[in-house]
Amino acid sequence: MKRPTMADIARRAGVSKVAVSYALNDQPGVSESTRASIKSIAEELGWRPNSAARALTGGRAQAVGLVVRRPARTLGVEPFFMEFISGVESVLAERSYALMLQMVTTQADEIEVYRRWWGERRVDGAFLMDLQADDVRIPAVRDIGLPTVTIGPPDVSGGLPAVWSDDGESVHEIVRYLAAIGHRRIARVAGPVDLAHTAVRDAALRDACRDADLAEATVIHTDYTGDEGARATRALLIAPERPTAIVFDNDIMAVAALSVAQELNLSIPADVSIVAWDESPLTQVVRPMLSAVTRDIPAYGARSASALLDLINGEEVGDIREGYARFVPRGSTCPPPARTTPR
Amino acid sequence: MKRPTMADIARRAGVSKVAVSYALNDQPGVSESTRASIKSIAEELGWRPNSAARALTGGRAQAVGLVVRRPARTLGVEPFFMEFISGVESVLAERSYALMLQMVTTQADEIEVYRRWWGERRVDGAFLMDLQADDVRIPAVRDIGLPTVTIGPPDVSGGLPAVWSDDGESVHEIVRYLAAIGHRRIARVAGPVDLAHTAVRDAALRDACRDADLAEATVIHTDYTGDEGARATRALLIAPERPTAIVFDNDIMAVAALSVAQELNLSIPADVSIVAWDESPLTQVVRPMLSAVTRDIPAYGARSASALLDLINGEEVGDIREGYARFVPRGSTCPPPARTTPR
Repeated sequence: MKRPTMADIARRAGVSKVAVSYALNDQPGVSESTRASIKSIAEELGWRPNSAARALTGGRAQAVGLVVRRPARTLGVEPFFMEFISGVESVLAERSYALMLQMVTTQADEIEVYRRWWGERRVDGAFLMDLQADDVRIPAVRDIGLPTVTIGPPDVSGGLPAVWSDDGESVHEIVRYLAAIGHRRIARVAGPVDLAHTAVRDAALRDACRDADLAEATVIHTDYTGDEGARATRALLIAPERPTAIVFDNDIMAVAALSVAQELNLSIPADVSIVAWDESPLTQVVRPMLSAVTRDIPAYGARSASALLDLINGEEVGDIREGYARFVPRGSTCPPPARTTPR
Repeated sequence: MKRPTMADIARRAGVSKVAVSYALNDQPGVSESTRASIKSIAEELGWRPNSAARALTGGRAQAVGLVVRRPARTLGVEPFFMEFISGVESVLAERSYALMLQMVTTQADEIEVYRRWWGERRVDGAFLMDLQADDVRIPAVRDIGLPTVTIGPPDVSGGLPAVWSDDGESVHEIVRYLAAIGHRRIARVAGPVDLAHTAVRDAALRDACRDADLAEATVIHTDYTGDEGARATRALLIAPERPTAIVFDNDIMAVAALSVAQELNLSIPADVSIVAWDESPLTQVVRPMLSAVTRDIPAYGARSASALLDLINGEEVGDIREGYARFVPRGSTCPPPARTTPR
């Protein structure tokens, strides 16, 4: 159970430890043939430079950190997270960086993790997700000195580099489409009210409805779970003036809406159109297949990782705007039923 | 952007660096009041022991690794993975251990990650998931010397400590239930044929059908995606002798089966009963709610993490058997239609 050391290589090669060090660090002092033979023995023994020693002298942990504060059970259902990580890792792997992952339940715990990671030289930088307005984590990571890239809109990133896509554009695209096929009453079952990207979508929805000369949309905020999504949908569909189209802020809540419609003997899309946010295997496996917005999430993760590595390397990193999620109509949207469009 | 050092603490406290070192390492040589004041300054400055220095002297990385080789898009839909990680982290956090996560596409890449992690002292141990028969990773981690706990059945763990639950018990429980309510023809839409736990379920299904005096079950192996699950379900349901009950090896394929039934104008459960493996938010959000097996996945992760930390600490660790997943009937199972039970 012991790692091979330079001493092991020296013994096997019949040379001094100094010669091994010269050879492996590509310094002069050994002949090319000795260097080649030492390198081949090192390879054979599975020798690697010690990351702890390197971190101590070079100051680099060669790792970046990601802390998530959503409940595991919710997180596990939304493909966004794992797809984002896969994109992050595609870039990290190329540069021999590792990813440290930590799940926490409170913002205070999250900040404590950053402090520990940075203090103990476990990471060279971190991603900040699920930004809020006046997010207390932003002054905290600044204070700690941890190089950080935020995943979310730049207006709440407090000057930290933001990698983001404009959810407002997506909202406008959805509303323009629904209005064009005749919908006049749109509602939205939204994510948590304290998330910055929820606020962006809220504001865009108000603007988009006004632009399309529609009634103001009813918005119900939830915790992203199927249960709360179902409850919100039920409330909307039993209301006297029920909406003819509902936009959902994730995929599991939109799937829950199919069940609620069935429960109320309403047909999707004939009676109510529904739109999911971020197309996923889930939105494609149900019937009708859900109309949804879609974007390249692994690419988003990759771009975020590149930005963080650049920042760690001392480069100037500005905000990076990714393409917004585009609307793709599938089977869950159609013109509203005639009786509900009095105009 | 600089981490606080012992020198910073010494300067602030007006004492020597040696005194700071004594105080923070709880060694004699400073008065109790000085020790208390030095510790409070260290706390205030956010000083942490340098993990690189500690790893170099103590030999501990204070991190464990997890490599996953499933496609991110599939992984993201199955809540198992994130729930397992949340359980792992609940134990790691208590002991100030970190989790390194890496996603790879091939077994060779996976082994290379273990070699690099161990060689560079980035981890003290690792979890091995998705075991196969004659798994090449097992001799590899033994050869590397990496302390490893396998998540899967002990008959394929090659003597490494296995934390496992007996999927065979769950299969027997499902089949006994279906037979008791009158089903005679059961089929299964299974996971990848090369996974050890798929093989365990295959064998148990053969035995359970024989025990219950049922026809041998048709089993179709898939890659766990909704697409392949739908295709397999379609093949089963259009066959001349269609099964009256189908067991699915994950949740997304069982949800896909609801869509296929709808497509073929079959009613669930009146025409066909379906059972999902691992109840999840997904199986509970669809209608009918899916009958499924359920287990405490975070507890499974926690137990696995405890076993790995014990192993790292040089303790003797044997195989640990978790409780098996229990069958919970919901809305997707009922007695078979009369015409299909000639007996």
